Amino acid sequence: MTALHLSGVVPPLVTPLTSSYDVDVASLARLVGYQLAGGVAGVFVLGTSGEGTFLTDEQRQVVLETVVGEVAGQVPVLAGVIDTSTARSGAHVVAACKVGVDGVVATAPFYAATHPAEISRHFERLASAAEVPLFAYDIPARVGTKLPASVLLDLGERGVLAGVKDSSGDETSLRRLVLDRPAGFTVMTGSELTVDSALSFGVDGVVPGLGNVDPAGYVRLFDAVAAGGLAVARSEQDRLFRLFEIIEVADRSRMGASSAALGAFKAALYLLGVIGCPLTAYPSIPLNDDEIAGIGSLLTRAGLLAG
Amino acid sequence: MTALHLSGVVPPLVTPLTSSYDVDVASLARLVGYQLAGGVAGVFVLGTSGEGTFLTDEQRQVVLETVVGEVAGQVPVLAGVIDTSTARSGAHVVAACKVGVDGVVATAPFYAATHPAEISRHFERLASAAEVPLFAYDIPARVGTKLPASVLLDLGERGVLAGVKDSSGDETSLRRLVLDRPAGFTVMTGSELTVDSALSFGVDGVVPGLGNVDPAGYVRLFDAVAAGGLAVARSEQDRLFRLFEIIEVADRSRMGASSAALGAFKAALYLLGVIGCPLTAYPSIPLNDDEIAGIGSLLTRAGLLAG
Amino acid sequence: MTALHLSGVVPPLVTPLTSSYDVDVASLARLVGYQLAGGVAGVFVLGTSGEGTFLTDEQRQVVLETVVGEVAGQVPVLAGVIDTSTARSGAHVVAACKVGVDGVVATAPFYAATHPAEISRHFERLASAAEVPLFAYDIPARVGTKLPASVLLDLGERGVLAGVKDSSGDETSLRRLVLDRPAGFTVMTGSELTVDSALSFGVDGVVPGLGNVDPAGYVRLFDAVAAGGLAVARSEQDRLFRLFEIIEVADRSRMGASSAALGAFKAALYLLGVIGCPLTAYPSIPLNDDEIAGIGSLLTRAGLLAG
Amino acid sequence: MTALHLSGVVPPLVTPLTSSYDVDVASLARLVGYQLAGGVAGVFVLGTSGEGTFLTDEQRQVVLETVVGEVAGQVPVLAGVIDTSTARSGAHVVAACKVGVDGVVATAPFYAATHPAEISRHFERLASAAEVPLFAYDIPARVGTKLPASVLLDLGERGVLAGVKDSSGDETSLRRLVLDRPAGFTVMTGSELTVDSALSFGVDGVVPGLGNVDPAGYVRLFDAVAAGGLAVARSEQDRLFRLFEIIEVADRSRMGASSAALGAFKAALYLLGVIGCPLTAYPSIPLNDDEIAGIGSLLTRAGLLAG
Repeated sequence: MTALHLSGVVPPLVTPLTSSYDVDVASLARLVGYQLAGGVAGVFVLGTSGEGTFLTDEQRQVVLETVVGEVAGQVPVLAGVIDTSTARSGAHVVAACKVGVDGVVATAPFYAATHPAEISRHFERLASAAEVPLFAYDIPARVGTKLPASVLLDLGERGVLAGVKDSSGDETSLRRLVLDRPAGFTVMTGSELTVDSALSFGVDGVVPGLGNVDPAGYVRLFDAVAAGGLAVARSEQDRLFRLFEIIEVADRSRMGASSAALGAFKAALYLLGVIGCPLTAYPSIPLNDDEIAGIGSLLTRAGLLAG
Repeated sequence: MTALHLSGVVPPLVTPLTSSYDVDVASLARLVGYQLAGGVAGVFVLGTSGEGTFLTDEQRQVVLETVVGEVAGQVPVLAGVIDTSTARSGAHVVAACKVGVDGVVATAPFYAATHPAEISRHFERLASAAEVPLFAYDIPARVGTKLPASVLLDLGERGVLAGVKDSSGDETSLRRLVLDRPAGFTVMTGSELTVDSALSFGVDGVVPGLGNVDPAGYVRLFDAVAAGGLAVARSEQDRLFRLFEIIEVADRSRMGASSAALGAFKAALYLLGVIGCPLTAYPSIPLNDDEIAGIGSLLTRAGLLAG
Repeated sequence: MTALHLSGVVPPLVTPLTSSYDVDVASLARLVGYQLAGGVAGVFVLGTSGEGTFLTDEQRQVVLETVVGEVAGQVPVLAGVIDTSTARSGAHVVAACKVGVDGVVATAPFYAATHPAEISRHFERLASAAEVPLFAYDIPARVGTKLPASVLLDLGERGVLAGVKDSSGDETSLRRLVLDRPAGFTVMTGSELTVDSALSFGVDGVVPGLGNVDPAGYVRLFDAVAAGGLAVARSEQDRLFRLFEIIEVADRSRMGASSAALGAFKAALYLLGVIGCPLTAYPSIPLNDDEIAGIGSLLTRAGLLAG
Repeated sequence: MTALHLSGVVPPLVTPLTSSYDVDVASLARLVGYQLAGGVAGVFVLGTSGEGTFLTDEQRQVVLETVVGEVAGQVPVLAGVIDTSTARSGAHVVAACKVGVDGVVATAPFYAATHPAEISRHFERLASAAEVPLFAYDIPARVGTKLPASVLLDLGERGVLAGVKDSSGDETSLRRLVLDRPAGFTVMTGSELTVDSALSFGVDGVVPGLGNVDPAGYVRLFDAVAAGGLAVARSEQDRLFRLFEIIEVADRSRMGASSAALGAFKAALYLLGVIGCPLTAYPSIPLNDDEIAGIGSLLTRAGLLAG
């Protein structure tokens, strides 16, 4: 395993779909171009925003090949290998390494209840199967388990993990990771909304779902903190805070929270001309025309779309 | 889809593994024989007790072929198709139908948050892909969502679902299903410990993990209720209540609850000579020799093993 | 402390209020009469159904004096002493004993997180302050902590607790209490809907909120099980299951679940002429006229009110 | 109600107890002096750190009188009026106003489940009963309900609430309050560990439990942010982050998390000579001598105690 120290903005790419629920390769290629033009430091595919757990193995393969091909080595490509168990995630690790990704990203096992010692065993085996660095993905709202800081730090010190993407929303735990991490251990936040704070106390970068829609905004935010311009950073963060209200447009009484949020990201990219169809993966309820129009208004307010 | 009205004891078979974590085909065949000799009315493979979410697609295939072959039509075989999304579960449905199972059993999607309307869409598509009856599996402790009774009943009335396996532990909801179900809709409880009660108020049968260890005990319990012998049934239930204490033998401070419970079932079957190795799927921590011996003592107390 | 072994139906009385949120003493007296006429084996005041945690100390005192006076020794009166800490619950214990109740009922401490050893200390001190038997009240949905069976059984064996009212909804834990309890330890279920089952496997009685509305129905159910008439019991339980749908009439989008349930019990008693005003305690949102009329229809369907 | 716009460090004072569980008035007076010497901008009594829900009404009265007397108008005194219902909290409001506090602080009702509309009614009635400004206290870990930002902002705009103490740990929600609040609405964070961040994005001040132990440290942190010295602030925050490890010294397998944290604060104040006895309120398990010594080592490491 070679080292990979991430820094900057690494958006978790959505997976554009056609109206018949196939991967829309042309749209995905345009999305990669949109991100690179925005100045991102890397891309993360098949994560939660990428609806990785919705896709078949064949569809995952199409996503990997498309993105690795389009990125063509300009920035690192990280691949989610999220699945219920070590054996199943391990198969995704092997597939992703064959395609040529630069890092793989795994959650704890889920569905079955697990113990921290079992989570450690899980990451150890995945790391030994990976030809590239392994990152942990801490997303307790989906997995049901918060990765304990002590487990992450131990695995970091032993060289099992190259870093963590923290989507726990627990700023205290995140800060402990930054304070106590071994040299070279990458800490990325999955937050969209507290990025200036997190960068200020030392995280290396950010993996924001909203970065699909406005990668350049997050890059400006990152650069402002790096340059010591906290007032500029806060102002940019506040603008993105308002933009994030697109996830509240769809009616939560008729669809799940994931459908509303991912549907908003896809609707925005559709309105921006980046992707060809705003559909989210089956069985998610799609946004209706009024909801998509409402998202358009918020894009205009944020300066991303002409009024 | 042909009708399949289940009744009686349908244990969720564990998946015996070799010391190198392969499916132990010979042990699995012996387990099928042990169940049939115990008088079960059906078997359920690749469920939670079967560690279905731990196994690779290839391992799932081996389990399906082995069990369908060994059962050879003597009782119905149900197959779990548990996975994170409709597309992924759908692939398991197709695979299981090809092997020749008699019914398939699916949870709601998990990892991503879902809405009841999305859960309905999920089951509708799976049913249309299945050549055999589809049963819902309600296990909120693992999936994170309780299947609402209203959704189950609506899907039953529309012929999408043939029934439900209820492992929610919510006796009130279970009772509502029994009271309000359409004709021919099967209701099975996944409880090990309140079976006499559930049968008394009208459920059709039971899918007890502990039935792996003592299928004949559950069959006696079922027959006693059917014959109106509630005192006999209660006494048998109380004996099985005590036997279930095998899941508390392993030290929960060093392994997860799943590992302790499934490890106990497998250790018991190992001590009874049914399976060749008590290992649970990776990354589960295995039981140690003392813990296995402790389970042996409880088997002796329950009259299943000579002292 | 004298012994008090409860058995039968012991409804948790609601606290009727006037339109200015005072305790309605005349209505409370009529409610006591309605319960005694229904054949109850005891009454429980200032519990969750009694809105005990909503009332001031002065209002609690009025309730205690009214009910003890009206019951006049015909059946035991139990009093809730629910509060956040040992010192605060202890003050309620002293007040209730002075009025002359026959038993006191306490939850674990809440608001602050507690450890089982701290819960034991809590009950020990309350028992030493009480001149009458102390019962534990297990209601994790409100308190945030499930009382462990091991703690309850230990306190029972040491004579600290005389019994438990189990409103946990966990039938397995309830069954363990029945199987393992020391002699003379009372186990009551707080369920409205699984009473025939619970009585069949050995609980002593039931504390059903719905018993406010139909005490005679629960008494018939209890008597049927005692006489071995399980078919009659199941039929009565099914009728009460339907009657319990009164708690689903009020619109949950505009009020809390407690307000909807307690408001339904009070609306029913108001329609039955037992209490003078259906108001629940401030800040609960009251039911509107349409909702009250809807409850009336269900009372008619259940045979409690002329159509 | 007069206006009260808070800013700076307002520690939630612990309540020192004697070995017989009475309020230790002399220690409480010394604690007030220690805080004022540390430069705090106010004090908050009878909150969660103050074990307000553990104390009887008489003990609460002693705390209020002692602190108001000792502070003698040098800084504002805020009083917790935490209780299960509007009527019960309202009685605490009246008592606190009589003693002469400068603001009162209330949670949502708890024990019973409440709806946002009911929470609004609760605060409205408390505000009308208070002669001083009313602050909301958002602590979902204890109350079971997160106060929705929309409710807080609406109550702020209508003049019902003067501000909020946010102990939710939800930095996103906190940031929304700062962005959207009406003029004059105070936002304080209850966090000990993300104070530099919170002050940077605009909260007015901090109510840190750890401020009991090191008020001067938090004042330095606040002053550094105000002066634009973020590197100094981050360094002070990191030192306090390490000091907060005192709450992890006590053995969580034998006591609750509250007991371990509050016991640590009290042990530290005892070792610093501020209070005479480290006991926490009954039924909390007290720290043992080894645990207290371990806390002493951490105080020495933090430069608060000679080695």
